[in-house]
Amino acid sequence: MIAKLISIGDEILIGQIVNSNASFICEKLYRIGISVKRVVTIGDNEIDLIRDLKDSQKNYDLTIITGGLGPTHDDITKSILIKFFNDKLVKNPDVLKKIKKIFRIRNIKLPEINIPQAYVPKKSKIIWNRYGTAPGIWYEEFNKVFIALPGVPFEMKEMIDNKVIPLLLKRFGKSLKTKFKSITLLSSGISESELFEKLGDIKQITGHTKLAFLPSLIGIRMRLDAEGNSLNEVNAKLSNAEKLIKSKINKYLYGKNDDLMEEINGKILIRQKKTLSVAESCTGGLLASKITDISGSSRYFCGGVCTYTNKSKIDILRIRDSIIKKYGAVSEEVALEMAKNVRDKFCSDIGISITGIAGPTGGTKLKPVGTVYIGYSDNKNIFATKFLFGTYRERNRQRAVMSALIILHKQLTNSKY
Amino acid sequence: MIAKLISIGDEILIGQIVNSNASFICEKLYRIGISVKRVVTIGDNEIDLIRDLKDSQKNYDLTIITGGLGPTHDDITKSILIKFFNDKLVKNPDVLKKIKKIFRIRNIKLPEINIPQAYVPKKSKIIWNRYGTAPGIWYEEFNKVFIALPGVPFEMKEMIDNKVIPLLLKRFGKSLKTKFKSITLLSSGISESELFEKLGDIKQITGHTKLAFLPSLIGIRMRLDAEGNSLNEVNAKLSNAEKLIKSKINKYLYGKNDDLMEEINGKILIRQKKTLSVAESCTGGLLASKITDISGSSRYFCGGVCTYTNKSKIDILRIRDSIIKKYGAVSEEVALEMAKNVRDKFCSDIGISITGIAGPTGGTKLKPVGTVYIGYSDNKNIFATKFLFGTYRERNRQRAVMSALIILHKQLTNSKY
Repeated sequence: MIAKLISIGDEILIGQIVNSNASFICEKLYRIGISVKRVVTIGDNEIDLIRDLKDSQKNYDLTIITGGLGPTHDDITKSILIKFFNDKLVKNPDVLKKIKKIFRIRNIKLPEINIPQAYVPKKSKIIWNRYGTAPGIWYEEFNKVFIALPGVPFEMKEMIDNKVIPLLLKRFGKSLKTKFKSITLLSSGISESELFEKLGDIKQITGHTKLAFLPSLIGIRMRLDAEGNSLNEVNAKLSNAEKLIKSKINKYLYGKNDDLMEEINGKILIRQKKTLSVAESCTGGLLASKITDISGSSRYFCGGVCTYTNKSKIDILRIRDSIIKKYGAVSEEVALEMAKNVRDKFCSDIGISITGIAGPTGGTKLKPVGTVYIGYSDNKNIFATKFLFGTYRERNRQRAVMSALIILHKQLTNSKY
Repeated sequence: MIAKLISIGDEILIGQIVNSNASFICEKLYRIGISVKRVVTIGDNEIDLIRDLKDSQKNYDLTIITGGLGPTHDDITKSILIKFFNDKLVKNPDVLKKIKKIFRIRNIKLPEINIPQAYVPKKSKIIWNRYGTAPGIWYEEFNKVFIALPGVPFEMKEMIDNKVIPLLLKRFGKSLKTKFKSITLLSSGISESELFEKLGDIKQITGHTKLAFLPSLIGIRMRLDAEGNSLNEVNAKLSNAEKLIKSKINKYLYGKNDDLMEEINGKILIRQKKTLSVAESCTGGLLASKITDISGSSRYFCGGVCTYTNKSKIDILRIRDSIIKKYGAVSEEVALEMAKNVRDKFCSDIGISITGIAGPTGGTKLKPVGTVYIGYSDNKNIFATKFLFGTYRERNRQRAVMSALIILHKQLTNSKY
């Protein structure tokens, strides 16, 4: 069973927003065995949408459209759908009641322009929108399903999870014979080409699974895709390929699928009953924020300081003024003191520090933009590592944080990769 | 002149990554007056790509393909292109030299699999790739341009900015008669429907410009698009529409285009010669990290503490133990002390604090997940505001940070919106 997504919105085509709705829906469909073969983004215009609806009717079992269901003049999806399906709009009292309630709760008089949202296509079923005023639409014609959802991510996501996926499973569950599954192995400290060479005869792996290499800031991700008639068959294929890969490059693998380095470190810290604190300069809270992204991080994360100025390094972290004067705030010496002192300050087992020049300004000949020192301190080891990243501020900050997480991981696991 | 983008990669179709390459290219093309009318994502498969190349040849002046140029077996773009254009691959010595150099710098022996990347289609021009081993490809056939670029964002972005855009301007500059431009007005503290009603007769605005409403966590963005034969004409249209909107809802507008609230606050802080520090609990460094995203933030941002545990609140921020015991760590009282004490600690003019329950665990009946207190302190005012957000951890953290930035903005500008 194959599907197509249509995202509607000029804001995507002029590059103002990233189409993250599409990836969300792709993933949810993939998980229930529906394979998205095409994602199309078009503007708020009738000709393109009609052209795509025709293509959908011909080539895809399922089409999901997002966007263009709002209350304002630029929202045209509903009117084009009723034209395409030769349908008309009828007032739905339940939807109207719901819309009225939403505004009552917000203590706002119902705006006139929201009333047309209570009119829905006669031949369609309604998909209830828990968080917003625009209901979703489910058309079934010529044995093909067309679904239209609002483009507001928060509303769309709830509808996909709690309404659309269950409805699709009910409608197509039995016909979803082919099962799909993918796993991703996460590596660090090795390039794509080296990985490929170390894996040797790739056909051993790709005989029964698809293998794709996806570079990221932290390393290369390897995605394995398999399909088969049963979940057992698919799992066996994936597990064989995984074993094969592990037998060749295990020491470079740190996790699987959606595992995040910060999450893996957290689990190890809990297991080893260790606590952590961080001192940041150029990353300005980004490392702490990544660590606390993880629910439950309060079990091992004591906290952090962001000492963005020299004065705050001296006042808050008690870095010696003489050290800063002699070596500069971006130096191995300051990184070492920051890691040691933050560990003392928070009474944690491990202290990590980052000091560097994120850019675009602040670089010198000896210490160009992208120079970053990362310090590590525990009850046995203390060291600082120098990195030279690139010229882009945001990327430098991200790479510094990732490198700090990798250093922590190496220390926690005694790895030498 | 109209364009289409083709993004190749199974990883997008299964929802593993978001197609941010497409938005980047869309924006760059839009700025030089090339209008992207369609973005298509397909898998690493020949049939779909050929189908799209045919569609491109028929309907679009320019097609840009990203992805599938890497060294591994799943990269098939080049072989499909030479098939489609009835072409063949020839070795390019310059590219080979470049690839060898890349590995020499990394101190790695040239992997066998990278050598085929030095073979390029005979009829095409090469687009030099500064950061990677895969060169880009420029085909021109039947007066239509086809460009293929690597999918690695870092490599692709450099090529678009420094090679593709200049080449397109050289090739099509004269024929780009119609000029496009868009501006976005950023509002906060008002809903989409209220905004729409306050704007009154929308046709006054949409007569000469397109108007779209785009909700975000911080408020509603209003994008105005205009086109015309000269930049002067386009600017006049936009400026009229902007004036009209400002005359009706000026007090809700805080910025324009890519302005970020944290950047606007930064500019005001510099102008008012004020400094800032922050104390965070549930947002764990996210507010500090947003503030230091802005280059030059060291001029006004002294730093922050992330006191993630009660102990660290007491030890580092000197919050009274009795207050925490009596009111709880998530309370107006603790938020007030955090804002006041962080201001003292960093000797800054303003202190801001966030304490709350991000979730998914930690909620109680009286203080459910999503309860957040934001504290503010300067030499005249001190207050804390309670918020009740939703149930999603990540969204709660984001909304807390955005709300803190809005509170700071209101205080800096004496606004009452």
